[in-house]
Amino acid sequence: MTQNIYDNPEFFEGYSRLGRSVQGLEGAAEWPALRALLPDMHSARVVDLGCGFGWFCRWSRDQGAAQVLGLDVSERMLARACAETSDPEITFRQADMETLELPAASFDLAYSSLALHYVDRLDRLLTVVHGTLVPGGRFVFSVEHPIYTAPRQPGWVTDDKGGSTWPIDAYLVEGPRRTDWLTKGVIKQHRTLATYLRLLTAAGFTVQHVEEWGPTDEQIAARPELAIERQRPAFLLMAALR
Amino acid sequence: MTQNIYDNPEFFEGYSRLGRSVQGLEGAAEWPALRALLPDMHSARVVDLGCGFGWFCRWSRDQGAAQVLGLDVSERMLARACAETSDPEITFRQADMETLELPAASFDLAYSSLALHYVDRLDRLLTVVHGTLVPGGRFVFSVEHPIYTAPRQPGWVTDDKGGSTWPIDAYLVEGPRRTDWLTKGVIKQHRTLATYLRLLTAAGFTVQHVEEWGPTDEQIAARPELAIERQRPAFLLMAALR
Repeated sequence: MTQNIYDNPEFFEGYSRLGRSVQGLEGAAEWPALRALLPDMHSARVVDLGCGFGWFCRWSRDQGAAQVLGLDVSERMLARACAETSDPEITFRQADMETLELPAASFDLAYSSLALHYVDRLDRLLTVVHGTLVPGGRFVFSVEHPIYTAPRQPGWVTDDKGGSTWPIDAYLVEGPRRTDWLTKGVIKQHRTLATYLRLLTAAGFTVQHVEEWGPTDEQIAARPELAIERQRPAFLLMAALR
Repeated sequence: MTQNIYDNPEFFEGYSRLGRSVQGLEGAAEWPALRALLPDMHSARVVDLGCGFGWFCRWSRDQGAAQVLGLDVSERMLARACAETSDPEITFRQADMETLELPAASFDLAYSSLALHYVDRLDRLLTVVHGTLVPGGRFVFSVEHPIYTAPRQPGWVTDDKGGSTWPIDAYLVEGPRRTDWLTKGVIKQHRTLATYLRLLTAAGFTVQHVEEWGPTDEQIAARPELAIERQRPAFLLMAALR
């Protein structure tokens, strides 16, 4: 199964203090861009792969979704997600994305925020997601961008004039990357952008939108520290159609 | 018009000594991958955008293409291309890719090798290429990869253990890059990978294949100096369908 780093106490503690954990969707700078890829949520049946604290599940119901299924491997996160709502149309379930099964043609929208780069057998998972969507159903997701996941030792390098660069290596060497983020030994899967496109197509999807996310001028005006995110994209956002 | 750097004497002299100029297609490491994207050439009407010395034009005729039109902005390159063949079914023409016009629905294959990253008005050019292809016609091209074109000061950095990284900055800042390669002040246009996809779709193409090129194991065995090309992709290869 995928490394369940979110149930590591140190990681969970650190993650719980991030803006996106405290403020929810609005605490994630890429959320407006991801939201723009979503279909009309009214009456939609939604599955969220890697639902975490359940922010998107609750938001979906606020937008009129009929039913929402939130899946996550982390018991700690699901415990908090369950405690945050008593909505009978939101269901949370523990699931390992490597072995997940879902009922055929049962959802209008599959969503996943920053979870798929932890999955080893992504080809298998994409086939499961494709099968659980109705024809015309949409899959909207974000992952860490391949430029972000490629380096063996990821991090900014600052030159003597204060300029920042993001040194890349091993971009074309796909596979696990062991990094230290919030705790030691977090394992992510690096894939190229071309591989994400190829796997989606192989699973039967039609790719509708590819976005290498960066902050807008308005976001940088409000939070100047975001400007560095234009040096290299941290997130890859995609929308695909069954 | 696009900077005509190929008619700069210093650049032309340097370019003429590259493997791909001396040995032709086989001197370009990415050629086998690009060739694999081509349709059956038999009886095809072919246009080559940025034909250079005309290697691909002559190869196309060897593969059975019916007619080939080679376009380039460089008089020096076209002079040599013309001198290399007396085939009446190969036509060379000087053309500026910024203002190029082509007849409607007249070609089965449009091809371009490492030329489009010099073009400013790529949206316009893609519409022209789409219009000159017959329905079902294919556009196969390579460009310098966005990871390659992004940095303001491109180049490898070697650490004290002999490892090489390719520092990125300004990836999300699209527009001209002035670099020194063979001569000073070569101007290329940096675009993100998402922008290439978006512009192709906007011009009416269906994207069929996206490849972030790296050397094969066999190529590295034969030429160990190619191994570094796995650290970051130098070329982006694409195939699209009208």
